[in-house]
Amino acid sequence: MKTSSKVEALARAARAASRTLSRAPTSVKNRALREMAAALRRSAAAVLSANGEEVAAARARGETAAFLDRLTLDARRLEAVALGLERVSRLPDPVGAVREFARRPNGLVISKMRVPLGVIAVIYESRPGVTADAAGLCLKSGNAAILRGGREAVRTNALIARALRAGLRAAGLPEGAVGFIDSTDRAEVRRLLRLDGDIDLVVPRGGPQLTRAVRRLSLIPVLAHDKGLCHVYADRAADPAMAEEIAFNAKAERPGVCNAMETLLVHRSAAGALLPRLSRRLRAAGVLLRGCPRSRAAAPGMMSAACEADWDAEYLDKILSIKVVDSLDEAIDHIARHGSGLAEAIVTRDRRAAERFLREVDAGAVYWNASTRFTDGGEFGLGAEMGISTQKLHARGPVGLEGLTCEKFVVRGRGQTRDSSRAPAR
Amino acid sequence: MKTSSKVEALARAARAASRTLSRAPTSVKNRALREMAAALRRSAAAVLSANGEEVAAARARGETAAFLDRLTLDARRLEAVALGLERVSRLPDPVGAVREFARRPNGLVISKMRVPLGVIAVIYESRPGVTADAAGLCLKSGNAAILRGGREAVRTNALIARALRAGLRAAGLPEGAVGFIDSTDRAEVRRLLRLDGDIDLVVPRGGPQLTRAVRRLSLIPVLAHDKGLCHVYADRAADPAMAEEIAFNAKAERPGVCNAMETLLVHRSAAGALLPRLSRRLRAAGVLLRGCPRSRAAAPGMMSAACEADWDAEYLDKILSIKVVDSLDEAIDHIARHGSGLAEAIVTRDRRAAERFLREVDAGAVYWNASTRFTDGGEFGLGAEMGISTQKLHARGPVGLEGLTCEKFVVRGRGQTRDSSRAPAR
Repeated sequence: MKTSSKVEALARAARAASRTLSRAPTSVKNRALREMAAALRRSAAAVLSANGEEVAAARARGETAAFLDRLTLDARRLEAVALGLERVSRLPDPVGAVREFARRPNGLVISKMRVPLGVIAVIYESRPGVTADAAGLCLKSGNAAILRGGREAVRTNALIARALRAGLRAAGLPEGAVGFIDSTDRAEVRRLLRLDGDIDLVVPRGGPQLTRAVRRLSLIPVLAHDKGLCHVYADRAADPAMAEEIAFNAKAERPGVCNAMETLLVHRSAAGALLPRLSRRLRAAGVLLRGCPRSRAAAPGMMSAACEADWDAEYLDKILSIKVVDSLDEAIDHIARHGSGLAEAIVTRDRRAAERFLREVDAGAVYWNASTRFTDGGEFGLGAEMGISTQKLHARGPVGLEGLTCEKFVVRGRGQTRDSSRAPAR
Repeated sequence: MKTSSKVEALARAARAASRTLSRAPTSVKNRALREMAAALRRSAAAVLSANGEEVAAARARGETAAFLDRLTLDARRLEAVALGLERVSRLPDPVGAVREFARRPNGLVISKMRVPLGVIAVIYESRPGVTADAAGLCLKSGNAAILRGGREAVRTNALIARALRAGLRAAGLPEGAVGFIDSTDRAEVRRLLRLDGDIDLVVPRGGPQLTRAVRRLSLIPVLAHDKGLCHVYADRAADPAMAEEIAFNAKAERPGVCNAMETLLVHRSAAGALLPRLSRRLRAAGVLLRGCPRSRAAAPGMMSAACEADWDAEYLDKILSIKVVDSLDEAIDHIARHGSGLAEAIVTRDRRAAERFLREVDAGAVYWNASTRFTDGGEFGLGAEMGISTQKLHARGPVGLEGLTCEKFVVRGRGQTRDSSRAPAR
């Protein structure tokens, strides 16, 4: 017989802890979050020292500047992580909320009660702050967490996780509520992803390779976003100045994030008023433009030629593809074919065109006269987010505390029994 | 290069049809459902004749009586299927419902809009009525369906699917909205389960082997129930007559279904008043009893000895395991360890015990003073159901039209753009 691995022991401990968490009062969970923040501040010197060594090692390996930046903690960032835990402690607790569902003719009273999912595994890369962010969101929503960060930050993450467990202890909650996998062996992750009896949800937080690998290997349901290929459509009835502001913001304000625009669609009647000014401004901001023939004709000398692959490219960079379309229908069709279902926007003064776009475009978030960049838990008022889902089951768009819970049916009777002879089976 | 298989062509046609369905008015979908019922009635002779031959073939192969019963259609059952489509046409349409979500300080108005999932594959066994039931629920909720029934009923199912498509045509909807896989090659199912780009959800409807196989092979999210291992707990403060009625109903009214009770838990103070009477009545109804030592002592000579495996057995038969417990806590612990998360009931006059049970027991449906047998879309007032989910993501318990939809964020602005320098990244 195979002896159970460390990851299986962690999962069993998390399952046991999840039962305690599911019935823990809000005040106890909030106290644990505050104690976790305090313990993190007490551990700051050790965490920052380990992080400094890990950043130095990564630099010596020749990692990119962006990678090193994600990996780096300093006193300011660590304090922001601690403040994040305290902010989660002040968010409303979704667990236990009850809504009426039905009163049946036989007198049964049916309601729905919001409850935690149980055990959530989070698999993430480089950014050590995720260790605390993810644990805090899971705890507040009544879930146990199992955390597995990148190997490049394993010592930093382990020290953060130790501080988090000290916070749990101080609030009288079981340490199994925050499990941390300190092995960097990938086989452990594969083992984890098969524990569908003990783990209820896996959240991969990282690049598309990580997400794809988790989806392929996991027997546990996965909540993730695959990619962010967002469009802004400047309609025939768009205000040119508003379209310019929104398109510039959606592309240039922070090009490397998933809710940035990758392709601009422009109605042929709007191209002349929009494209020359917008193109100049984007180019001045360092954005390379790739246009269809009509786009290039509208802003001569400012774009290279787009090829078919550009419509499917998630650049995450200072590159924008631009296409002129003949109609709202063509814009909606283009988005259905090439969009990733994260965020899509229309700019128009025509209410009917806007309502058609909002209804027919299939994405986690659809916008009328606003930038796709608002697709974010904080901007939506969720307080914090576990990520942005591009899938359709369970939770779409930014996932906050409620997305980490589900509803069960609660049925109250007075001794009712069923007589199925009244409704024969087919 | 590999030529695309038939199943891939079906999936692409379904994806295209799903866009039409997602914006089809309720009246058109309802008309299609009525036309489908009419076409089914017109095809009755052909369907019943094919079914008669398939039932004869199954009988010749030596299939069980229960199998043959599930496979058999007669005029009455076929009419019930047609009536089911008409009933779905009268249910409220969940698609397009909008609820307010947030008004943000920057003036963005955020709401949530209910939309179809897209394309739903249903993989089912023997019962041919599922062909129409599943297609009707998918259509009403704005989803395209891809259907794959058991090989023993492939001719019956193909004729039903042909009638359904005639109904779609008559209402002006694309035939791709109801795809039917008429191949009995299992490789086609494996191919189907990899089409996560074109299919949004797979619903296996059949035994645990089918469900397990689909879960292992699918890259598409799965909605299913694994098994139904339901408990009734007769509390210390249970009314003995009510406990007897509920327990008898939960076990004996229809023992072969997933919401029937498999294990009775009895508080030690309630065993004397309940077990002798209930045991006599269950035995008279042909139910075999397997008890723990204290259960057997309470009703001498009426039970065989239960072994550990009995607490994990989904009998789906006239067998009941019985265990005496010392406390509500022990009952809740037993259910956490052995329950399948489908339906769990407490019988008690003690409101505090009931509220603890309802809150702490983790199942799709939890009951106070009513039979677990009510766990059913019809009994909950859903009008019809696609199945009962024992998973926690997306939909728990009976899944009706709403469970086949999701919500997207709809954001309305007046030209707002984001300035992320106000909230620095960590």
